[in-house]
Amino acid sequence: MRLLVLNPNISDSVSALISAEAKRAASPGVLIDVLTAPFGVAYIETRLEATIGAYAATCMAADHHASYDGVIVAAFGDPGLHGIKELLDKPVVGLTEAALTSACLLGQRFSIIAISSRIRAWYAECVAYNGLTSRLASIRGLDQPLSDVGGIQQDHGAALKQLCLQVVEQDGADVVILAGAPLAGLARSLSGTLPVPVVDGVSSAVRHCETLVSLAPGRVTAGSYALPPAKPHTGLPAGLAACLAAGRRPD
Amino acid sequence: MRLLVLNPNISDSVSALISAEAKRAASPGVLIDVLTAPFGVAYIETRLEATIGAYAATCMAADHHASYDGVIVAAFGDPGLHGIKELLDKPVVGLTEAALTSACLLGQRFSIIAISSRIRAWYAECVAYNGLTSRLASIRGLDQPLSDVGGIQQDHGAALKQLCLQVVEQDGADVVILAGAPLAGLARSLSGTLPVPVVDGVSSAVRHCETLVSLAPGRVTAGSYALPPAKPHTGLPAGLAACLAAGRRPD
Amino acid sequence: MRLLVLNPNISDSVSALISAEAKRAASPGVLIDVLTAPFGVAYIETRLEATIGAYAATCMAADHHASYDGVIVAAFGDPGLHGIKELLDKPVVGLTEAALTSACLLGQRFSIIAISSRIRAWYAECVAYNGLTSRLASIRGLDQPLSDVGGIQQDHGAALKQLCLQVVEQDGADVVILAGAPLAGLARSLSGTLPVPVVDGVSSAVRHCETLVSLAPGRVTAGSYALPPAKPHTGLPAGLAACLAAGRRPD
Amino acid sequence: MRLLVLNPNISDSVSALISAEAKRAASPGVLIDVLTAPFGVAYIETRLEATIGAYAATCMAADHHASYDGVIVAAFGDPGLHGIKELLDKPVVGLTEAALTSACLLGQRFSIIAISSRIRAWYAECVAYNGLTSRLASIRGLDQPLSDVGGIQQDHGAALKQLCLQVVEQDGADVVILAGAPLAGLARSLSGTLPVPVVDGVSSAVRHCETLVSLAPGRVTAGSYALPPAKPHTGLPAGLAACLAAGRRPD
Amino acid sequence: MRLLVLNPNISDSVSALISAEAKRAASPGVLIDVLTAPFGVAYIETRLEATIGAYAATCMAADHHASYDGVIVAAFGDPGLHGIKELLDKPVVGLTEAALTSACLLGQRFSIIAISSRIRAWYAECVAYNGLTSRLASIRGLDQPLSDVGGIQQDHGAALKQLCLQVVEQDGADVVILAGAPLAGLARSLSGTLPVPVVDGVSSAVRHCETLVSLAPGRVTAGSYALPPAKPHTGLPAGLAACLAAGRRPD
Amino acid sequence: MRLLVLNPNISDSVSALISAEAKRAASPGVLIDVLTAPFGVAYIETRLEATIGAYAATCMAADHHASYDGVIVAAFGDPGLHGIKELLDKPVVGLTEAALTSACLLGQRFSIIAISSRIRAWYAECVAYNGLTSRLASIRGLDQPLSDVGGIQQDHGAALKQLCLQVVEQDGADVVILAGAPLAGLARSLSGTLPVPVVDGVSSAVRHCETLVSLAPGRVTAGSYALPPAKPHTGLPAGLAACLAAGRRPD
Repeated sequence: MRLLVLNPNISDSVSALISAEAKRAASPGVLIDVLTAPFGVAYIETRLEATIGAYAATCMAADHHASYDGVIVAAFGDPGLHGIKELLDKPVVGLTEAALTSACLLGQRFSIIAISSRIRAWYAECVAYNGLTSRLASIRGLDQPLSDVGGIQQDHGAALKQLCLQVVEQDGADVVILAGAPLAGLARSLSGTLPVPVVDGVSSAVRHCETLVSLAPGRVTAGSYALPPAKPHTGLPAGLAACLAAGRRPD
Repeated sequence: MRLLVLNPNISDSVSALISAEAKRAASPGVLIDVLTAPFGVAYIETRLEATIGAYAATCMAADHHASYDGVIVAAFGDPGLHGIKELLDKPVVGLTEAALTSACLLGQRFSIIAISSRIRAWYAECVAYNGLTSRLASIRGLDQPLSDVGGIQQDHGAALKQLCLQVVEQDGADVVILAGAPLAGLARSLSGTLPVPVVDGVSSAVRHCETLVSLAPGRVTAGSYALPPAKPHTGLPAGLAACLAAGRRPD
Repeated sequence: MRLLVLNPNISDSVSALISAEAKRAASPGVLIDVLTAPFGVAYIETRLEATIGAYAATCMAADHHASYDGVIVAAFGDPGLHGIKELLDKPVVGLTEAALTSACLLGQRFSIIAISSRIRAWYAECVAYNGLTSRLASIRGLDQPLSDVGGIQQDHGAALKQLCLQVVEQDGADVVILAGAPLAGLARSLSGTLPVPVVDGVSSAVRHCETLVSLAPGRVTAGSYALPPAKPHTGLPAGLAACLAAGRRPD
Repeated sequence: MRLLVLNPNISDSVSALISAEAKRAASPGVLIDVLTAPFGVAYIETRLEATIGAYAATCMAADHHASYDGVIVAAFGDPGLHGIKELLDKPVVGLTEAALTSACLLGQRFSIIAISSRIRAWYAECVAYNGLTSRLASIRGLDQPLSDVGGIQQDHGAALKQLCLQVVEQDGADVVILAGAPLAGLARSLSGTLPVPVVDGVSSAVRHCETLVSLAPGRVTAGSYALPPAKPHTGLPAGLAACLAAGRRPD
Repeated sequence: MRLLVLNPNISDSVSALISAEAKRAASPGVLIDVLTAPFGVAYIETRLEATIGAYAATCMAADHHASYDGVIVAAFGDPGLHGIKELLDKPVVGLTEAALTSACLLGQRFSIIAISSRIRAWYAECVAYNGLTSRLASIRGLDQPLSDVGGIQQDHGAALKQLCLQVVEQDGADVVILAGAPLAGLARSLSGTLPVPVVDGVSSAVRHCETLVSLAPGRVTAGSYALPPAKPHTGLPAGLAACLAAGRRPD
Repeated sequence: MRLLVLNPNISDSVSALISAEAKRAASPGVLIDVLTAPFGVAYIETRLEATIGAYAATCMAADHHASYDGVIVAAFGDPGLHGIKELLDKPVVGLTEAALTSACLLGQRFSIIAISSRIRAWYAECVAYNGLTSRLASIRGLDQPLSDVGGIQQDHGAALKQLCLQVVEQDGADVVILAGAPLAGLARSLSGTLPVPVVDGVSSAVRHCETLVSLAPGRVTAGSYALPPAKPHTGLPAGLAACLAAGRRPD
């Protein structure tokens, strides 16, 4: 099985974190390739940055999906995810939905630990889009400037663990989600030290994508995830144009 | 007052409909300019197409907003809208939120008439994002192929009026929204012939944008609509790059 | 265009605040008349007082609407609003729905600043009636006795501004609503000094009512906002009796 | 124990139905007095009519409550109910909340059978105000003109029973509510002939009011149901003025 | 009238509290019998313990209901309640639903005071099952070890009263529910000393059960509360087996 | 890895279906053992039957979990699931939550196909408990008597496929869930013949349980899924007593 992991941002240091955790999480025999966005920003905190990342992820997916069994959009917030699900006739999983899924299987209410205060509004909207607001205990975030997005775990490790403890003790969380690709792998090191389960988006996405591939639930030719009806277009990158012009599933 | 109206799609025929209705709706002395997306698809029916239109609208907004008092994103579904609100320090209004706003001021429950069946899933998600699902009576759509998106009003006028009557009689709608830029202007001609008020997104957006400009509610430097914090970026169009690199509101 | 503004309470000092802000907000050529309730209480804090104000506003609307293009119910909480919408075949707008509308066009989540603690429960129910609870960040209110309802802005200006800052910093508000006719005009003076947009119900209602008049969305003869079916009645004020006895829209 | 039952409408024939069912339902030793509104309409179908009925019920409650242990607002939709709860330091129960309460104790989902189609929108809003929309299976109503509100049970008995069967078979109702004072007593005659429990507002309200009196849960001096703070007023009926001017609970 | 009260737990000291309060609350002529579970735990704090209590209560109901007019499940959280409603063709009321019902008739928003911190998660789920989360102001609980479940009122009386005051002052509660059979009777002694009404589950359940018996709303032969269709079974206690094998209502 | 699959019902024929599909779905090297409940009913359609199944599943889990890495509760509706999650310090997954999880990863809205009409009410409550009602398009069920629960796929295959097509065409389902252990394996045979993905609870549960085991998210010692505090108990089966008496995680 081959999985394509798309980092919708331009930070190679984050792609390295993603790649390391994805490979640790993957089942034996699953090959993982990680691509970094060719355009965009260092990391996504807002709706505006998500617009950019969504388009970058979509273009990457159109260009590179061909030889893979499944695709992962590796930014919390899932930029472009549901459009890419329409585009490709194979499992596509986002970090947010994957982490929420793992959390929901582990307990009734979860909290999200985020890398900045600003990002919380966007995350709350992502949880709402997934229909899971009633199970969200809280979102807490670091409130310090981030000098190096690839080094957050080193620079703010103690503060992140403190936030984890706060959501259990004060907010009623049964499960903690460490949100955002820059925190990839942190759950693995924290999991023995917290009083509740701790969930990571990257490892969750890899495993859930493997599951969907293996369940083989069938192709989509109707409903809102079928490829959009063919219609005129212009000025699109070649990969995306090829998919859309076909007016049907690429294969 | 000058308002910039962005068509996130590539159809000049739809831009013409938008322009005509926007100018009919505008207050005396309000200048309207309409731009058509330089890349994208003919019209947006799905999440995937919305991803493309969102990026196109964002790039247009970054490039062209400078001399305008307000900006309108003129596709139902509001692709890119909330990101553009973060980007610009001036009122930005979308067709969906504008139509929902007008409808909510006219009655408790509204229905949406759409140009295709496929588009309904995406519209339902847009209503949910606006938090107004509890006031949505129904979404009904044409179920016929659209040969010419600029000619829907001519080709399917009777069917559209029939859908309007059905939502009043069968779904409990107090107000009807004619959704989508290709229907711009239709509400104006139907309004005398239906038993409930009928709302158009373009005229609503123009008027509501004028209102926000005149209310002058103040600049945004905090909360989730402030310009995102400055961070590294690469490969972005010049206009967008200029806005983001500044790490503060463009002016 | 002529707009009738109804103060459902008996405080002439509040009517003066309403009138001043309404006239500042109105477009050129829009005439504003403000009426004070002939019976009732000084201001509305509770459901009981809203019952009284609702009936007063309804009676005033029935008596005086004839020469106006639109009507505004100028108390936060919108007492009697939706009944008056049934009664009159012209746009009728309330302060709460107008302020919520402006706020929703300016950001995803809003907070409400209120003139007393007691009033918060009623306001929360008003937001719920508008279906917007999911976008409400918080309601905060003054907790001091109000010696003079017409002088709250002078007496409690610093405390009100402090509440505005708290909802941005602590509650996640993207927009602040200054609620209640006694605060009419305060948003205008605060708007430059806060980090997020600030919304006033009176100016919002005037502008939104103008918009509805100009959009001319059509008369109502079906749905839940049509005039109630004719039925026996007794003991009603002459204006109201005349409207109801007709069993159809007055004109 | 003495209970005051207020008919917020002017129909003596409906008061007679209310009185008969209330007395059948009351426990031994409970005295029931029914008052008909001195002003208003024949029956309430809409928000406008509810505004009138709310004020009438409030005035009646202020004037006549003194010698009673509890008060019932005997129109479905509960016009004025929560304001009267603020006004009086004794149990006050409405037909809607009472019927919903009985229904919720009998099953998870209920349907409402109403006397007209128009009334359904208002009833849906009443259910929402009670927070019980998620348990509402459906609202169905007669769609025929009502020549005599006091004679609906005779004139439309078969149609009403048919509606009851439809909500069980088609809408998933576990319980049926026969809504509106004009249907008072019908549940009693239908209860043996339907496959699910059937609930009547009047008998439910009488019994629930008795329960609250007997539970003696304590006086209200804080929270949103305390008597409103004293404030200037004018032009109010003597009873209401006396209550309000006191700035505390009447007794 | 004879009511059977089932304590789903094994604590005779709690059954004594239940019995005393149930008898104080019952109308003249209503006989109350209380049974203690033959197996289970001392009191229920969690979903696991509720599973055990649910089965115990179901078995007790099947064995002992025959000569009673109504049945009460006397543990907050209502373990097994809705299954027992399917099983018996007579009113069955739970402590939680009864307390919520009383609270909703007394005010718009209620808080719950609980005997432990752990129990709050389960109570929140019970409120959600009743569809009343939007009316829940808060749940607060004791945070001390409970040495004697029958003696909580004596051991922690001051702390419980303090929690009651906090939910009024800080959480916006209009009504307070004292939750859990171990607090049976406490509301009666506190009701004069709190600024809002205080509700007890046992007395509420007794009175509401009496009401349902007297309303005689009819038998259930359809919908989701009819006795389950007959199907093979094995290993069940004799009482339960007898009910189920019949494939229809026992009588 | 060893997984224990618990059939909360007594039907060996259904256990055989569960076992076959679980083994087909399991990753290489994962051992599956299936246990049939020693007491209970043939299959679960209602809340009452779920109470019985919940206790049976809990007792089985307590007795037999020791040598397994994860446990699956193999009845749709997840009887006893969340209590067992409290009981065991290892992943425990239910068929409903697993199927919902798979469906949510495959599309925004799902429908459930059920084996009987009666079962739909209970399933709707299960979806609500999972917080996913907003993503539920519909529940449709067979409306024919079931002569042999192990033979439903043979006896009603065409009707089940027809229901699948209806939810796509009429209800807006993006994904179809075939609900209930008696349908285990049917998704696998239908998946190529439907226009949307089709999900099976058993295979989903096996794969998601494997995922949780491999993610190793950490032990639970706080929050609402920790083992309940130790308290007196009596009359419980030995396995369950041993777990509870410990007052901490078994093993």
